[in-house]
Amino acid sequence: MKFIHTADWHLGKLVHGVYMTEDQSYMLKQLVKLVEEEQPDCLVIAGDLYDRSVPPVAAVELLNEVLFTINVKLGVPIVAIGGNHDSAERLSFGSSWYQQSDFYLAGKLKDTVDSVNIKGVNFHLVPFAEPGLVKYAFNDDRIISHEEAMKAIIEKIEKKMNHNEPNVLVGHAFVLGGETTDSERILSVGGSGCVSARNFDLFDYTALGHLHSPDAISHNKIKYAGSLMKYSFSEAKQQKSVSIVEMNANGTFQLERKSLIPLRDMREIEGYLDELLDERFYSEQKKDDYIKVTLLDEGALIDPINKLRQIYPNILHLERKRTLQDMKKKTKLNVLTDERKSELELFSHFYQEVTTAEFTEDKQNIIVDVIEKMRREGVGR
Amino acid sequence: MKFIHTADWHLGKLVHGVYMTEDQSYMLKQLVKLVEEEQPDCLVIAGDLYDRSVPPVAAVELLNEVLFTINVKLGVPIVAIGGNHDSAERLSFGSSWYQQSDFYLAGKLKDTVDSVNIKGVNFHLVPFAEPGLVKYAFNDDRIISHEEAMKAIIEKIEKKMNHNEPNVLVGHAFVLGGETTDSERILSVGGSGCVSARNFDLFDYTALGHLHSPDAISHNKIKYAGSLMKYSFSEAKQQKSVSIVEMNANGTFQLERKSLIPLRDMREIEGYLDELLDERFYSEQKKDDYIKVTLLDEGALIDPINKLRQIYPNILHLERKRTLQDMKKKTKLNVLTDERKSELELFSHFYQEVTTAEFTEDKQNIIVDVIEKMRREGVGR
Repeated sequence: MKFIHTADWHLGKLVHGVYMTEDQSYMLKQLVKLVEEEQPDCLVIAGDLYDRSVPPVAAVELLNEVLFTINVKLGVPIVAIGGNHDSAERLSFGSSWYQQSDFYLAGKLKDTVDSVNIKGVNFHLVPFAEPGLVKYAFNDDRIISHEEAMKAIIEKIEKKMNHNEPNVLVGHAFVLGGETTDSERILSVGGSGCVSARNFDLFDYTALGHLHSPDAISHNKIKYAGSLMKYSFSEAKQQKSVSIVEMNANGTFQLERKSLIPLRDMREIEGYLDELLDERFYSEQKKDDYIKVTLLDEGALIDPINKLRQIYPNILHLERKRTLQDMKKKTKLNVLTDERKSELELFSHFYQEVTTAEFTEDKQNIIVDVIEKMRREGVGR
Repeated sequence: MKFIHTADWHLGKLVHGVYMTEDQSYMLKQLVKLVEEEQPDCLVIAGDLYDRSVPPVAAVELLNEVLFTINVKLGVPIVAIGGNHDSAERLSFGSSWYQQSDFYLAGKLKDTVDSVNIKGVNFHLVPFAEPGLVKYAFNDDRIISHEEAMKAIIEKIEKKMNHNEPNVLVGHAFVLGGETTDSERILSVGGSGCVSARNFDLFDYTALGHLHSPDAISHNKIKYAGSLMKYSFSEAKQQKSVSIVEMNANGTFQLERKSLIPLRDMREIEGYLDELLDERFYSEQKKDDYIKVTLLDEGALIDPINKLRQIYPNILHLERKRTLQDMKKKTKLNVLTDERKSELELFSHFYQEVTTAEFTEDKQNIIVDVIEKMRREGVGR
């Protein structure tokens, strides 16, 4: 039995004020193509289909089109859950109809856990829910944390579970406790939003969403699919993919990651303005990627963002490099709390605000000359 | 062939700050019961299922539950269109799946008109669309008005239409031109949002939504269902109902209106405060109806709304009766634009602001006495 595991599509996402819809559509077309080629028995989407509870209309249309193509046109069953970014109730609308064509969507946690058997594999659908909601749905006052909520959910599953068939939990949570993490320590320190990996021991495969890196956990049976694409510069170095899982009848599996190629990559570049605007530099680059630029120049620059945008039309963020030493220097001066500073001090402060260079003695001498000249000529006060 | 025609549910509606969800749920339970009893071949909902493009979660859940009960549990096909209050795209989500169980939902106008045959009757689904959208969808620059848009839509329908079977248009529009209305005159005067009844001559029955009274048009083949319930005090005297239509093979039909009983009626009462608070008055009334009170009292009243609320907990609006003469009187005086008014004038103005009675000479004399007494004693200026 073969399924594709994906998560965190975040349709309708804005990154630095730019809608990602075109890029998401491009990625999802590749996913549809992959589904056509791989002919899996099921597509698993582990939450955060949308980026927010009321997604923009274009996102609604895109999700509708992609899911209908996969589910009805290609006839592939879908198992999907709501994530913390989805509105449980809004996402749930229509789910009773979808079941008729093997599209199983659990938007909202109920007092029972939906389970569905697809070609001999049981999928248990655990949509994201705040502990307070689980407490209410299960009428169990002892549930305070995500850890307790997940324990209670899994107890419910266990009661009805068929251990003679492979079992897959589909969830959306911050799970800690892979081979490299001492999860108990982290939990006790106060990772209140976290869930311990040990909860999932029962399952042959735990198909997770929530964390955006497919490497967010290192565990032989608990896996994040990772997000559909990079949604933040903090993810710039991550390799995004979907997971193709071949599940054997005894619950063992083989997992293969397939990378999808973004329309525009998200990456960071760093350098001096002149350098970045030099054809020898940018000619080898995909200039329409989403780019964060860090400028190394000191001193004032005239309209660097527009100069850069001529070359890199999709620049999303620009910043100047500041060393820790610069920061420290800055805190020593505070022009607003002492009005009796000399012109030289004021200029020195200004210089350090707008540049990252040292206000050397040579530079100071030039300014002192200018100030004295102005005073003689009666400019200023 | 029998269908039930309803429209303008406006789920999620707020009336004077109060959510109507409980009342709507109560009405829809009766509709579900009616469907069970009547066993129609189809339920027609002619737009405005929701009151706004992003309805509250409770409204989403209510619609989902009611439609699923009727369509899947009771196995009754549904034909529904989007109205001007619905979001075309949001409402459309999932419609491709719904078709599989004979739930035909046209949320958004496309370049072709959806038609569906149910037991020998053709339903043509015309969701509400602004003329600009029809112009764009049909790529026809001549479309400026609603009238032109509807003409273009009906031309499309006509090309594919089977005239040997009954044809029903399901639309959401302001249609003018019943037996009692000279629509051409009204249209030429500038009713730009209106559509002429003549457009629908082709159809054996035109199932409309938009106007909230089932009597909004008097025409033998063009019918409004009216809204699910009263949504404004201007509708207080309307009799709300759903229409049960028995369609014959030759396109003639019998129509019967079935009234649904509201949980709380919406009605207006008028009288003096003491009268309305008198048990002999209210003991015969359903006190928890949604009520608009018009008080006939003149003179200042101390906190009348809270006194009334003790008896009528769902009072939504309170106003004082003012005659046309009062209004005229008021416009003559404007204390803010003339600061040189005498105390008597100021008081006269105040008296007329807070009462609806005449400021008679007797009353004036009393005030003149008071003012003079105050002046003598040095109070005031």
